Amino acid sequence: MKYEEKFALYRNAAEEELEKSVVTDEKRCGGLIEAMRYSLLGGGKRIRAALVLEFCDIYGGAWKNALPAAAAIEMIHAYSLIHDDMPCMDNDDFRRGKPSCHKKFGEAEALLAGDALLTYAFGYAAKSKANPENIVRALKEMSEFAGCDGMCGGQYIDLESEGKNIDEATLETMHRLKTGAMIRLSGRIGAILGGANELEIERADRYCAKIGLAFQITDDILDVIGDEKLLGKPVKSDSSNDKKTYASFYGIEAAKKMADELFCEAKSIITEIDPKDDFLMGLTEFLESRNH
Amino acid sequence: MKYEEKFALYRNAAEEELEKSVVTDEKRCGGLIEAMRYSLLGGGKRIRAALVLEFCDIYGGAWKNALPAAAAIEMIHAYSLIHDDMPCMDNDDFRRGKPSCHKKFGEAEALLAGDALLTYAFGYAAKSKANPENIVRALKEMSEFAGCDGMCGGQYIDLESEGKNIDEATLETMHRLKTGAMIRLSGRIGAILGGANELEIERADRYCAKIGLAFQITDDILDVIGDEKLLGKPVKSDSSNDKKTYASFYGIEAAKKMADELFCEAKSIITEIDPKDDFLMGLTEFLESRNH
Repeated sequence: MKYEEKFALYRNAAEEELEKSVVTDEKRCGGLIEAMRYSLLGGGKRIRAALVLEFCDIYGGAWKNALPAAAAIEMIHAYSLIHDDMPCMDNDDFRRGKPSCHKKFGEAEALLAGDALLTYAFGYAAKSKANPENIVRALKEMSEFAGCDGMCGGQYIDLESEGKNIDEATLETMHRLKTGAMIRLSGRIGAILGGANELEIERADRYCAKIGLAFQITDDILDVIGDEKLLGKPVKSDSSNDKKTYASFYGIEAAKKMADELFCEAKSIITEIDPKDDFLMGLTEFLESRNH
Repeated sequence: MKYEEKFALYRNAAEEELEKSVVTDEKRCGGLIEAMRYSLLGGGKRIRAALVLEFCDIYGGAWKNALPAAAAIEMIHAYSLIHDDMPCMDNDDFRRGKPSCHKKFGEAEALLAGDALLTYAFGYAAKSKANPENIVRALKEMSEFAGCDGMCGGQYIDLESEGKNIDEATLETMHRLKTGAMIRLSGRIGAILGGANELEIERADRYCAKIGLAFQITDDILDVIGDEKLLGKPVKSDSSNDKKTYASFYGIEAAKKMADELFCEAKSIITEIDPKDDFLMGLTEFLESRNH
């Protein structure tokens, strides 16, 4: 199956799983469920879900068995965006072209919707069809990569770096944790639920780490270029959102080159994983095309 | 072993487990870990942890096997207090006699510390020594009872009820979910990890539901009596913290009677669980003594 076709298959399956995962019924707090659904089903590329499903497929599991875990990863992603948008964090009024969760439902409601999505994710991932040892391991890794040693840790570094000069190592750690950890987790969980061995899990991890960082760098570049287009003039490379990014730290050209190198390395890891895997190659090339 | 002795044993073991659960090391974000520890280790009666350990013990597991799950329940409890104290929720500056997490570390930091504790809890509970099927079930229940159908749901109802007249059924649902769900979860998880059958899990649940609600009612009463002592005059029973409580809804005497009945029912469930269990009887009598 070609990349585009398979991605559409994964994306639609993930969307359907999400649609039926958090549902309103008369026994539930309708308002809370509504806020959860608003942010969970509000678009999103579902790249994380697709990685879970593909790595489960590659390593011998039926990809549908990992659908609950794929949905869970998207729940964690959705909760992180809700909390990230709140006034005490980034204070963003919009997300994906519509009012952010706290603008739509109120701050306390958004806080609870985020908490509830994160909590829901662990129970939902546990519904994946795999042997119980692998499910326990998948949940342990979910906790590790999403928590203080992963995504939350990255957000904390981001927070503490605001308005400060940070060094190269801090910039890399921040992005490795903030965005990279959840992308790596997606590959790892898919592989684990598919029944992969340690070497295979490690390969999934390495591939995802490369595209995760490259994806972040490309996002940073697109932000700056977007600002330039919007303002009709070049933006000083160190002023993009007043935040330290790869584009502001190294300049756009150097950042582009770094992303290209990472995509190239990712492709070479695909040959270790499965040289015939059209999906990973197609995904990598799609992500790469955003950089050009 | 007598109740007091056993409670001290459980409490100290839980405290020790918590102390070593979230630790600073050079690879971690020190500031985030500090905020997590501040709220996690800041006192607390550890009744939830003790219930996990006791029910594991009763149903045939070695109680120490459930220590990670007991610690995890306390992590979830700690996160809920951090988020509950935040300005957009109850806006409390103090917790257990010291500045609340957001007063000490900042709002965004408190938000992340809560998120990180909740995330950590699931991975930590998964370290319990039990067969993988039981661990998966325990984690599923943790997600269910702490999330939108449990604690988060109760907090949402509380939020939406502010300044409104609520009916008896809403008051009960709110308390059943907000406080009761985590107490029931404690008993259930202990029983599950100990290897209990369905009937035994259900007994643990029923006992915990009774003491959970009675505990909440007693807390409500003590709040009103505390206010009266503080102000040197009777407080109107409907003005306690401007919140709907059992004391304000039914009046203090009726609320006391309701709590007494619940304690009585709890004691009768102990005879189903194990008539020789001194710990549960001692715990129930201790909680009951707060009501007199």
